[in-house]
Amino acid sequence: MILRSSDIDKLDKYYRINLINQLSGVKGANLIGSVSGTGLSNVAIFNSVIHIGANPASVGFVLRPLTVARHTYSNIMETGFYTINQVSSSFIDKAHHTSGKYAEGISEFTEVGLQEEYLGDFKAPYVGESKIRMGVSFVEKHEIALNGTVLMVGKIEELVIEDGLIESTGHLDLDAANAMGVAGLDTYYGVKKRVRKGYVSLG
Amino acid sequence: MILRSSDIDKLDKYYRINLINQLSGVKGANLIGSVSGTGLSNVAIFNSVIHIGANPASVGFVLRPLTVARHTYSNIMETGFYTINQVSSSFIDKAHHTSGKYAEGISEFTEVGLQEEYLGDFKAPYVGESKIRMGVSFVEKHEIALNGTVLMVGKIEELVIEDGLIESTGHLDLDAANAMGVAGLDTYYGVKKRVRKGYVSLG
Repeated sequence: MILRSSDIDKLDKYYRINLINQLSGVKGANLIGSVSGTGLSNVAIFNSVIHIGANPASVGFVLRPLTVARHTYSNIMETGFYTINQVSSSFIDKAHHTSGKYAEGISEFTEVGLQEEYLGDFKAPYVGESKIRMGVSFVEKHEIALNGTVLMVGKIEELVIEDGLIESTGHLDLDAANAMGVAGLDTYYGVKKRVRKGYVSLG
Repeated sequence: MILRSSDIDKLDKYYRINLINQLSGVKGANLIGSVSGTGLSNVAIFNSVIHIGANPASVGFVLRPLTVARHTYSNIMETGFYTINQVSSSFIDKAHHTSGKYAEGISEFTEVGLQEEYLGDFKAPYVGESKIRMGVSFVEKHEIALNGTVLMVGKIEELVIEDGLIESTGHLDLDAANAMGVAGLDTYYGVKKRVRKGYVSLG
């Protein structure tokens, strides 16, 4: 079937949200941990974490428009640091529940029962349950004029990865990590390695 | 294990590329189709397609720095249009081979044997084999100062989706589409739906 722009505009709001969110396929499910200048922590699930570059090691994610309070955003702006924590199947329920709306003044770590972990002198809280974790410093942001979403770009300051998950080539064993993918806002997918292909270097 | 920024900087180049590319987990595998002003088509695989918004329906992807010729970029700048085509398992080999370097003047559609399909009066070529496809018009770009990568943002002008893949809620059946995920540059993952959770609306 073909849906034109005018057809898409006429779709039921939630039908459209479900459809458009899933068009590009499965994404990694990640929890972003942060803390306010006054010490109130926050953890929230994102499906929009993307690779930016390997040198310097850097990472991005997309925030919804800042028309309502976004604690992840305000905390990063206050402290300059955050963590990105891959979601495994064992804590997927808790991870998903971070997307709920909770009372002001209570950390989502407490609300959903995820372990708030501070490592060394890194300023933002890690998710204790996560096997693949990045400590990130804020570098730059780009507001998308079309709809007010914001791309946040940061530098990876440290990696905290469970022993045994990094292969000799540097690849991660995402099967062993029980990594979860998410499509759209609410549909979680398990992943299973099918094939690793070499770099293509033809001609 | 913990790797600090100074440890990451010292890693072997390819080890670092493999590791850093996979940190955020599995991504959707998508082919972007475009054509130059003189009619030479291009198709290239990307692991960086992200949801931008549902209203207006919009989508983004990240391009490597423009320090070498990027036909996808120059074609989009010339014509204003491109297509994003989800990769299924049946054509994963051809899709991966689009990342090779080919002689100038020959379309990757021809080189790898993917079907170049023009639908209606949409200006950019679709991948005939793909089950979930978007026709996109360029809207804006953002260059990331840290490393010169570019976020490209477009408006979804039309959707071309195989019959039977859209569920009554608007969700896509990515299992039935045999959708592939990719982690890093070279590792493909099959996906299998585990659970769909409702919107969280607590408190």
